[in-house]
Amino acid sequence: MRLAELSRRSGVSTATIKYYLREGLLPPGRQLNATTAEYDEEHLRRLRLVRAMVQVGRLPVAKVREVLGHVDDESLGSSIRLGAALWALPQVPEPDEDDAYVRAAHEEVAALVDRLGWENAKCLATLSPAYRSLVVTVAAFRRLGYDWGAEQLAPYAELMHRTAVLDLDNMETLPPGAERIEFAILGAILNEPVLRALHRLAQEEETTRRYGFE
Amino acid sequence: MRLAELSRRSGVSTATIKYYLREGLLPPGRQLNATTAEYDEEHLRRLRLVRAMVQVGRLPVAKVREVLGHVDDESLGSSIRLGAALWALPQVPEPDEDDAYVRAAHEEVAALVDRLGWENAKCLATLSPAYRSLVVTVAAFRRLGYDWGAEQLAPYAELMHRTAVLDLDNMETLPPGAERIEFAILGAILNEPVLRALHRLAQEEETTRRYGFE
Repeated sequence: MRLAELSRRSGVSTATIKYYLREGLLPPGRQLNATTAEYDEEHLRRLRLVRAMVQVGRLPVAKVREVLGHVDDESLGSSIRLGAALWALPQVPEPDEDDAYVRAAHEEVAALVDRLGWENAKCLATLSPAYRSLVVTVAAFRRLGYDWGAEQLAPYAELMHRTAVLDLDNMETLPPGAERIEFAILGAILNEPVLRALHRLAQEEETTRRYGFE
Repeated sequence: MRLAELSRRSGVSTATIKYYLREGLLPPGRQLNATTAEYDEEHLRRLRLVRAMVQVGRLPVAKVREVLGHVDDESLGSSIRLGAALWALPQVPEPDEDDAYVRAAHEEVAALVDRLGWENAKCLATLSPAYRSLVVTVAAFRRLGYDWGAEQLAPYAELMHRTAVLDLDNMETLPPGAERIEFAILGAILNEPVLRALHRLAQEEETTRRYGFE
């Protein structure tokens, strides 16, 4: 397809597409002559991913380029590429290891992953941004006087594990390779608002079921 | 307790506590004489809630005052007070009803809540900010070419309902009244980062289980 059709099908203006091409966020089209290039479905897919990261995820262009660099690095196995791309997404600030609440939270999170038998989390621990952000939020709870520990967190963690199983089942409906990794990144950006909205709606539903409009 | 002890136990400086008192975010203490006031456990609890909203939730002071106004409105039943307080928290932008993706997303979300038998959601529909934010995020998915519909969303919604059941079970361990409502607001601010972190950690775990470090 030509640039105009790529623009029409993606809903992204030709000026923006040209900007993404210049910035290397989109691979160049196949040059037909000095002024015309041809684009394919892969360009369309990539353009949608860039748009999600920029517009929904509000990632700066340099960060988008870094994430895509991992997606396209064919020297690595696909699980490593996926991990690297997800880890490159913006993360919470580092836990302050001098803080007593943070140290207590570390112990609780370690007890949690031990109890769950999450071997990957036990092995990577604070190398994983997700692990670090769990420590930071558990510490915030503790600082506010709510001592949430492994026992309270475990049933939530089990439901989130079932959610992750759904995520991967959905991802596996796609062919392996870059498309799958792109879907996983989109999921990390878009699934979270969906889950948040579903969770809030379910809270309203359950509140009304239990207490009516008392 | 005196101001100094309230400050020590909450970790909030006396200058900040005085500011919250002036702004009406914290009820005045019992005046012992012209310069000394006495504070109790309820002040400490309220101070922690204010701190969570301001520091973790990044709510402006006027918004905190609005949320607390609902918590304290004893003319209303507790379910209504809780609903009003949660609805006053910051929400996503309104869906643009002229947009074809938004109209399609409306239909999918209506089909979803119908399928789930969520009577409260069916009845309130777009009156609920959670419902509107679900419409907005489903529309964002569709705009990117992923036609997530009621069928794909239903298993996620069921897991989020089980999460909401846990939330309310935890809330019911507290005495009814303002304390419960405060806990629910804290949950809305702090549980979401916990769930997000647990979800990401579970995704890493499940990815490694399925694919190893291929």
